[in-house]
Amino acid sequence: MNQKKRTEIAELGEFGLIDELTKGATTSNKRTLCGVGDDAAVIAAGRDDATVVTTDTMLEGIDFDLTYFPLKHLGYKAVTVGVSDVLAMNAQPEQIMISIGVSSKIPVEALQDLYEGINFACNELGVDLVGGDTTASMTGLVINITTIGRAKRKAITYRSGAQFNDLICITGNMGAAYMGLQLLEREKRVLRDVENPEPQFTGYEYLLQRYLKPRARKDIIDVLAEEKIVPTSMIDVSDGLASEVLQICKASKCGARIYLDRIPIAKQTSALAEEMHIDPVVAALNGGNDYELMFTVPLSMQEQVMRLGLVDIVGHITRESTGAYLVTPDGSDIMLRAQGFKE
Amino acid sequence: MNQKKRTEIAELGEFGLIDELTKGATTSNKRTLCGVGDDAAVIAAGRDDATVVTTDTMLEGIDFDLTYFPLKHLGYKAVTVGVSDVLAMNAQPEQIMISIGVSSKIPVEALQDLYEGINFACNELGVDLVGGDTTASMTGLVINITTIGRAKRKAITYRSGAQFNDLICITGNMGAAYMGLQLLEREKRVLRDVENPEPQFTGYEYLLQRYLKPRARKDIIDVLAEEKIVPTSMIDVSDGLASEVLQICKASKCGARIYLDRIPIAKQTSALAEEMHIDPVVAALNGGNDYELMFTVPLSMQEQVMRLGLVDIVGHITRESTGAYLVTPDGSDIMLRAQGFKE
Repeated sequence: MNQKKRTEIAELGEFGLIDELTKGATTSNKRTLCGVGDDAAVIAAGRDDATVVTTDTMLEGIDFDLTYFPLKHLGYKAVTVGVSDVLAMNAQPEQIMISIGVSSKIPVEALQDLYEGINFACNELGVDLVGGDTTASMTGLVINITTIGRAKRKAITYRSGAQFNDLICITGNMGAAYMGLQLLEREKRVLRDVENPEPQFTGYEYLLQRYLKPRARKDIIDVLAEEKIVPTSMIDVSDGLASEVLQICKASKCGARIYLDRIPIAKQTSALAEEMHIDPVVAALNGGNDYELMFTVPLSMQEQVMRLGLVDIVGHITRESTGAYLVTPDGSDIMLRAQGFKE
Repeated sequence: MNQKKRTEIAELGEFGLIDELTKGATTSNKRTLCGVGDDAAVIAAGRDDATVVTTDTMLEGIDFDLTYFPLKHLGYKAVTVGVSDVLAMNAQPEQIMISIGVSSKIPVEALQDLYEGINFACNELGVDLVGGDTTASMTGLVINITTIGRAKRKAITYRSGAQFNDLICITGNMGAAYMGLQLLEREKRVLRDVENPEPQFTGYEYLLQRYLKPRARKDIIDVLAEEKIVPTSMIDVSDGLASEVLQICKASKCGARIYLDRIPIAKQTSALAEEMHIDPVVAALNGGNDYELMFTVPLSMQEQVMRLGLVDIVGHITRESTGAYLVTPDGSDIMLRAQGFKE
């Protein structure tokens, strides 16, 4: 009876789907400075300032597995996830609202653990928890995070500002959180039928911490402000380096070259990747969950940025026509793809 | 092994739970004007203005049933739900962000229907859709709505401003959406095993529309502004009149008397309630989903408010010590409770 066209979500992919759904969205309020398509919406506040607002959803079974994710860490991570998008606009996070959907089977004490983590992260970052809503959920735990930040309008960094020849900088290292997740999943599989499971994490604590309790890089935003550096573009690394480079290229209408041997990868990441027969570069490019920042600055700022001692320069911006590539040490170019990469 | 105390969520109730979880929340940013505990958070924007931000989550199986909820209407309602909280602060809604979690089994065309409803409501209300995020869901459809509004600081209405002897006003009528839901649920039960179901809704279209496609009462906020009426307190009626009266009493540290025969109930609401052996007053007090506004004004404004022709005065504010009561036509007092009421 139903003769309607049926398109599978997989045909469009996540980003294609968002583009498709929001293509009709136009803005008409004079205070809406930036709508769909960046880490956060930007709204005028006073003559020189702007409020940035961002929202994230974390779903049990997709974004976290409660069999090994301590609720206190989950609360902490929820704040990091929200704050990271605000930082990616070069804004200071100030308020956060967290709504949860919970099954009535979860005891109040477990939710108190969740909120202990939330409050801890809020205190660490100087963010006010200004709203909370708790509703019933038929299925798993649902966490929604709305984060609000503030910046001078002229300091806000969009994804769209990268220029030809700009340097591509990233903070921290890549792939550690992904390997932490692989480790947790492995131990879960191995210990499924063991009565008193004692997972073996020795030597890999750093990877677990990167996945379970990532720190939002507010320190970077503070240092950039002190040094009066305003990046030309910025994005947070939540879906993997490759995906974020492609987002910047799409928004800035440019290409990019990323040098494989410049991508910072922690020793523990490489060690566990080797042990588990995973290519550490794939973990770094596509792993996700890093919550580091990627930004671009003009070539002329190379020395100033290097002096910070907080970032690695992993590549540079090219013309749109040349596309986005990963350059291997032997000099061959591999086209970057959001999920996986191919020659 | 786990000797931890275990408290069931039901022991605290939804509002008790929120209080328990957010009791540690303090605010430290000077721009945070109002945190946890109202319809929206209030953040300073410029010298005289404020930004209000609110977040809502709608979960399949709890807040809507896709077997009878058309996705276009669901998109429309999601905007109403978000905007209603902003209006309840006496603020003008300006931006909205909608995140959805969907199973990959949902076709893209269904999501386009959802967004058609979202865009239609946004256009009707002059609200910009400024963010959208789509993630996978293991289970049902998850919709999160973040709504942003703007007001002069001195015009913002909090739940906490009701004063002794203030009049309690409500817009529209109560219980219609609840009866619409009962009708949909009845037809679902009756037609479960019928091959080509043809539900019987004739005569009750109004109730369905109130449940499936409620309109946000922006008209009220516009009229209040034109008439230069700033209510002493305001809240949106989403959980039922009784619950909202109790929220105002709690925040304003006051009591209230609501007169049963003053509660506006539509004819169709009463008719279906009778047919289904439901007390229409229970539907009005506890039904929820009305998305009307309840506000208080000083007694001296009685005539001015009546002249608007848009609200009913259903009661007045009393001292905290006297509690919150429903007064029946025979003069007996029934204590108001958030869920159900008892003598």
